[in-house]
Amino acid sequence: MQDRPDSGRKRVVIVGAGFGGLWCAQGLRKADLDVIIVDRHNYHLFQPLLYQVATAALSPADIAAPIRNIVRDQRNVRVLLDEVTSVDRAARTVQLAVGGPLAYDRLVLATGVRHAYFGHDEWAEFAPGLKTIDDATQIRRQVLLAFERAEIETDPARRTALLTFAVVGAGPTGVELAGAIAELARHAIVRDFRTIRPDSARILLLEAGPRALPSFRESLSDEAARSLRKLGVELRVGAKVEAIDADSVTINGERVPCRTTVWAAGVRASRAATWLDVPCDRNGRVVVDDHLHPPGLEDVYVVGDTAAVAAPEDASYGAFVPGIAPAAKQMGGWVARDIAAWASGSTAPSPFRYKHQGSLATIGRKSAVVDFGFVRMSGFSAWVLWSIAHIFFLIGFRNRLVVAWNWLWQYLTFHRGARLITGNDEKDV
Amino acid sequence: MQDRPDSGRKRVVIVGAGFGGLWCAQGLRKADLDVIIVDRHNYHLFQPLLYQVATAALSPADIAAPIRNIVRDQRNVRVLLDEVTSVDRAARTVQLAVGGPLAYDRLVLATGVRHAYFGHDEWAEFAPGLKTIDDATQIRRQVLLAFERAEIETDPARRTALLTFAVVGAGPTGVELAGAIAELARHAIVRDFRTIRPDSARILLLEAGPRALPSFRESLSDEAARSLRKLGVELRVGAKVEAIDADSVTINGERVPCRTTVWAAGVRASRAATWLDVPCDRNGRVVVDDHLHPPGLEDVYVVGDTAAVAAPEDASYGAFVPGIAPAAKQMGGWVARDIAAWASGSTAPSPFRYKHQGSLATIGRKSAVVDFGFVRMSGFSAWVLWSIAHIFFLIGFRNRLVVAWNWLWQYLTFHRGARLITGNDEKDV
Repeated sequence: MQDRPDSGRKRVVIVGAGFGGLWCAQGLRKADLDVIIVDRHNYHLFQPLLYQVATAALSPADIAAPIRNIVRDQRNVRVLLDEVTSVDRAARTVQLAVGGPLAYDRLVLATGVRHAYFGHDEWAEFAPGLKTIDDATQIRRQVLLAFERAEIETDPARRTALLTFAVVGAGPTGVELAGAIAELARHAIVRDFRTIRPDSARILLLEAGPRALPSFRESLSDEAARSLRKLGVELRVGAKVEAIDADSVTINGERVPCRTTVWAAGVRASRAATWLDVPCDRNGRVVVDDHLHPPGLEDVYVVGDTAAVAAPEDASYGAFVPGIAPAAKQMGGWVARDIAAWASGSTAPSPFRYKHQGSLATIGRKSAVVDFGFVRMSGFSAWVLWSIAHIFFLIGFRNRLVVAWNWLWQYLTFHRGARLITGNDEKDV
Repeated sequence: MQDRPDSGRKRVVIVGAGFGGLWCAQGLRKADLDVIIVDRHNYHLFQPLLYQVATAALSPADIAAPIRNIVRDQRNVRVLLDEVTSVDRAARTVQLAVGGPLAYDRLVLATGVRHAYFGHDEWAEFAPGLKTIDDATQIRRQVLLAFERAEIETDPARRTALLTFAVVGAGPTGVELAGAIAELARHAIVRDFRTIRPDSARILLLEAGPRALPSFRESLSDEAARSLRKLGVELRVGAKVEAIDADSVTINGERVPCRTTVWAAGVRASRAATWLDVPCDRNGRVVVDDHLHPPGLEDVYVVGDTAAVAAPEDASYGAFVPGIAPAAKQMGGWVARDIAAWASGSTAPSPFRYKHQGSLATIGRKSAVVDFGFVRMSGFSAWVLWSIAHIFFLIGFRNRLVVAWNWLWQYLTFHRGARLITGNDEKDV
């Protein structure tokens, strides 16, 4: 069915409906082309707020919207819930797990990243990462269960281990997670237990490098560290994690009993480079030129976190375009313009050039750090700005209102609306 | 820890924090007693709206609230997330899976029901029932996936099977589920697909008895049947289900290809009768006297769906008190009064007598049937009444507002806010 010549028009296949893929599809809304979006999930996920699902503040549906619903009025788009297993560059087809081969004239790979354990895949079992909704509900389950188990536990040492939470990696996700767990323990659930004191929970934020938020300026790292300490997060820099198991995490030779560890230390790109058989960097990202093509593949684009794109020379944030939502959107938008120009025979846009709009990270419900280059903010005003920005960018009017309401409610009451331990119904108590 | 003599006061153990257990605990708020609630889940579930989670209208957190949060200001209550494995009547202890033995002076069992397949347990795999949040997200997943798979499917017969949905049992849950699936197909997602027409979906509601809503008066059954037909639900009465497998359901000898079957045909009580080693009826419900005691067990109460309580003689709805939320609440409240009287040495309440407040069932977003005995309603006015009643009875202020908002939004836009296919991340496309 996918391979019927539905309209005689050229076909663009977009794999992945994250920020990169979705922005590309929407950028093609006026193009005389058939666009097919393939995704393993039926929803677009607003990943920047995923840590709020993991810490019981928001429900999954608050930060996810069905892809087909987002593009339902864009008649040149079709959406397939399917998974790519390989790409045949010569035949110009992608192989789908359910739907068979799918031909393309232009292919856009926007397949994102997964967390990576840098040669320690055995840690995955004990230290889940945070990239999907199922990751988030699993972490939520583990964190909430730890408090429940601690309430029943009679052995003081085991109780301490249950009330110790380690977050590995102090990039924005790690900082946000640690801050949110601290607030959960110290505010949202503090009066709900009788035996334990949730606010005695110990939250460790472990960073191998010399400071938190290494991609931010040093002054903002300092601000973040101060805010974290105020929330009761124990930030340890230069902390090399040497082992993780079900009951502990070992840092610089010290074994810390700890029943909940969350991984926010690193990512690895999807298998796009393998599908294409093209060079990738050490994180698996496809090295692309300034037209977002892998070398020699004019009919293929790679965008978003999956692509290694050289940063402009004057960039303050590093040698590559960072793996953040605005970068993915810019790439998706640029590819849409390039493809539209190709389809209509008009002038191609000038090569892709990333515009860094700024870096944001939030620390609990009252503080954030924001770096726009020309202006840097921290503390409460930065938090307000962060909140407005995130709600504004949330897909879907309803989601915006629900999230805004949930945040206001939580802010006023410290209440968490989604404290559900779900899944594994039969396996656990 | 649970067995320390925490206060020297008598201890009431309540197993199950559904309507019966929770109302009992709250009824004991002024009693000079220690109350311990044990539940397998950390949340109280507003089960009457579970079908709305199964059909993507509400998020799980909208209809569930953490038990400890509900009772956090009631200082004589403790909550344990644990599971009962047995009861020792002589020693007056319940055995917990994690926490060990827990002594009681009075025991209240309010452990509810599960769906039952009447000797066909092999159907469970193909026809999930709807009692827990995990049930609901599984059904949501299956229903949404059926449409996604149909969009990819090229074989017309297989596509028809994917777009055929069977609901077994036309009690209130079955009627509500079938109506909600019909509305999902005909309104919420109708414009989201390109290959299939979701509104061509066939929704079968299969009832072995002679009419839908058998516990309602016949005139209301007729109204419900009319409303269902208007929604496009194919109601079949006298339909005996003889076989269910992954691809079909067999009714009165006819094999109907059908990839999604949901079970709403019957329930079986929890294992309370087995724990107590007391007589039960054919649905596993513990037969109790008019003090809600099993025969000869003055220190044990059984309430809610787990109990078989004789109805008052003049009852119109059958020989037993029905398994609905108001009945469970009344029993829980009565037991609280009885226990409080015992603890304080004051006069015991008169024997339990169930007051039937009425029967309600909703059919889609515009119709319902309501039977208050003295007044019967159907159609839109009944739906409005049903909505207000359900929102009013929802636990927790925030949940009420979120649900009210979601309903209003859906009503105005036909939009469904929780159309997420989650779980089984790795196993499926």
